[in-house]
Amino acid sequence: MQLISAPWILPVTSPQGGVLTEHCIAMQGGRIVDVLPLGQAHRQHPEAECEHLERCALLPALVNAHTHAAMTLLRGVAEDLPLDAWLNERIWPIESACLSREYVADGTRLAIAEMLLGGTGCFADMYFHPDVILEVAADCGARAQVGIPVLDIPGAWSCSDAFEQAEEVRSLCTRAPLLSAALAPHAVYSLSLDDLRRTGEQARALDLRVHIHLAETRQEVDGCLSEHGVSPAVLVDRLMPEVPLQGAHGVHLDDDDCTLLAVRGAGIAHCPASNMKLASGFCNLARLEAHGIAFGIGTDGCASNNRLDSFAEMRLAALLAKSVSEDPAFMDAHRTLHAATLGGAQVLGLDGETGSLEAGKSADFIAVDLSDIASAPLYDIAGQLIYACGRNQVDSVWIAGARKVRSGELVDIDLEDIRARAQSWQQRIGELLPG
Amino acid sequence: MQLISAPWILPVTSPQGGVLTEHCIAMQGGRIVDVLPLGQAHRQHPEAECEHLERCALLPALVNAHTHAAMTLLRGVAEDLPLDAWLNERIWPIESACLSREYVADGTRLAIAEMLLGGTGCFADMYFHPDVILEVAADCGARAQVGIPVLDIPGAWSCSDAFEQAEEVRSLCTRAPLLSAALAPHAVYSLSLDDLRRTGEQARALDLRVHIHLAETRQEVDGCLSEHGVSPAVLVDRLMPEVPLQGAHGVHLDDDDCTLLAVRGAGIAHCPASNMKLASGFCNLARLEAHGIAFGIGTDGCASNNRLDSFAEMRLAALLAKSVSEDPAFMDAHRTLHAATLGGAQVLGLDGETGSLEAGKSADFIAVDLSDIASAPLYDIAGQLIYACGRNQVDSVWIAGARKVRSGELVDIDLEDIRARAQSWQQRIGELLPG
Repeated sequence: MQLISAPWILPVTSPQGGVLTEHCIAMQGGRIVDVLPLGQAHRQHPEAECEHLERCALLPALVNAHTHAAMTLLRGVAEDLPLDAWLNERIWPIESACLSREYVADGTRLAIAEMLLGGTGCFADMYFHPDVILEVAADCGARAQVGIPVLDIPGAWSCSDAFEQAEEVRSLCTRAPLLSAALAPHAVYSLSLDDLRRTGEQARALDLRVHIHLAETRQEVDGCLSEHGVSPAVLVDRLMPEVPLQGAHGVHLDDDDCTLLAVRGAGIAHCPASNMKLASGFCNLARLEAHGIAFGIGTDGCASNNRLDSFAEMRLAALLAKSVSEDPAFMDAHRTLHAATLGGAQVLGLDGETGSLEAGKSADFIAVDLSDIASAPLYDIAGQLIYACGRNQVDSVWIAGARKVRSGELVDIDLEDIRARAQSWQQRIGELLPG
Repeated sequence: MQLISAPWILPVTSPQGGVLTEHCIAMQGGRIVDVLPLGQAHRQHPEAECEHLERCALLPALVNAHTHAAMTLLRGVAEDLPLDAWLNERIWPIESACLSREYVADGTRLAIAEMLLGGTGCFADMYFHPDVILEVAADCGARAQVGIPVLDIPGAWSCSDAFEQAEEVRSLCTRAPLLSAALAPHAVYSLSLDDLRRTGEQARALDLRVHIHLAETRQEVDGCLSEHGVSPAVLVDRLMPEVPLQGAHGVHLDDDDCTLLAVRGAGIAHCPASNMKLASGFCNLARLEAHGIAFGIGTDGCASNNRLDSFAEMRLAALLAKSVSEDPAFMDAHRTLHAATLGGAQVLGLDGETGSLEAGKSADFIAVDLSDIASAPLYDIAGQLIYACGRNQVDSVWIAGARKVRSGELVDIDLEDIRARAQSWQQRIGELLPG
């Protein structure tokens, strides 16, 4: 039994939140046994090993609800371009030329290092060679939902690859406590109706969730309406009935879409930085909220965001929601923290396991150092965490009770090796870039 | 003579930008003598003292074009509130109760420490007791434009205080090379026409610039239209003719306002985080750009932003401009860096002195460490600086050739004293807060 205490604990058990003082987290065997007053904890567990994190707040490890981890290797290859040119002239050609098991392994490890150092303990991924991603995530001790990508990248990956690997990936996940799988069809505009339908069938057959880019851009919606006569949400609903659904972006969902998604219990991964950088539009979180749709916060991949930084993303999500809804009281600090933790876990179907500090859940939590002068003075802990804190204030991270970050340093991941591999990819990919 | 070199130098001499390699900054007596190729520099200045900053990019020190520095002491006192309640129920009552010379000194010093550590070398301030601000800025060696606030805060400060101090503040500035002064009427809705007119007269008489909150909210514009029949920009133009003008926010400027401001040569301090947090609306940078209006980037005060972080603000300005203009190519990385440096200096009327790395200007520059794994791989230096970097990557800061930050630590400012004073204010102000 271990007791971890700190001046403040934010258990995030509801959107309204709350801050506990003089409390601690009791954990054993990688799970939270209780969150309870310190005095009571010492009486109940006199033999426990105790650690106090001075100046820190303890909160659930953050959940990155949508990313393409290995795309860290493409950080900055395509700045300030329209989405079309971004995808068709840069991202996909480079992926066609470089995609390999080694590329995916090195990019994913870099992403996990960056995310862990920034307090992100769980991520929903969508990228090629999912078996490699599983291996790297397991090796790093990160929690991941691995999305098996259904998409054709000529010469590098095909829908058939996805369908062939799905059963193996799922069965690898059942043996790894931190890992889960989803089928991840890219989007309605990049797949045939047959492949979308087949994705739905296979998801049902294998009992997998579906993770798809959904209503990300106006063009996607307009194209779907003109080609199929219905919105992307309706099309997905028809072609993939009955499977648990998580949509990434959800920028251009109308009220009918939301009604349908709410009935299905689908969740949305809100990706504010990526949507803003690619000028995809503003996701209307107030509409999702009004329909009772669960939403989390995602960074998207590094090629459209450049930071796998859930702290920056939380702050941006709150600021953007207030301005889009024209209501400064909307998405308050506690509500935002909820979206970045338990909300994300709900979207991934993992809210029984992670996302809040509650007895029985996995011990996935972080300690954020509030002694930085950028956090002084300190009147409002949740407000400070969302609006003032940077990820550089993350002191410690535990995943399933294992210490992954201590004093802002990775405990058991070799950063120098990761850095050297990134440098070598920089050389190879750099040669493919114009001028 | 000193030669400071690094793998990359971004001199920011135009909005299109550019990156120099194998170059250095030659400086002497606090001024930039030249930015030139390393080999040539060593030949021309064989006796020079040389320093090479491995892994770093050198760029102009960032300019925070609008803030209320001392409001760091109110960081987090009023989260998630509508502007009206924010200002009338929290900010102004607390200021009425606490405002003193000691409060301003302690808050300003905390702000300067935070800004210097984050690479901000110059700030346009607007706060009470400007003589105290001058003293603190001079003591810290920061560059500041001190805005003498024209506003009545019952029991704490009055318009008369401002008018009485203006001449003294201006003359103190003429003796301090890093300091300049402006008259800072709060806004058209918070001052009488007489006080606005008097501000203009005094600015002309003392040869001071005017720094005013301008078209920040829809209510401000609607109120001005209904009370005075003209927009805030037109009203200010009429009541304060012929003085150099810098407007903060400029969210609700229409085309006529912009035409008028362009003719006057007025500049705008764009404050994206504050505008989003208070749901004030979206500033249309593309419109300012089309009218040829200079704009800089400001954090606003800590009570409506929580971070005096020009790196976060640059990233947000770029992301927001793309999404508001629906053009992902707008506000590219070089253009954004220009706004945060030379653009800000133009707004403050200081572009002859700071904001770019050019022979003859003050040696105000920073070194940003790009070896962080969050900056790997490294294909695009400007893109990385705007979209990926955090202020924690600031390695060094020079103001007028004096080293203010080295290896991420303040060189000659006592952080422990600042922290202790913030803590003591936290105690006093905390008692005034509800609940």
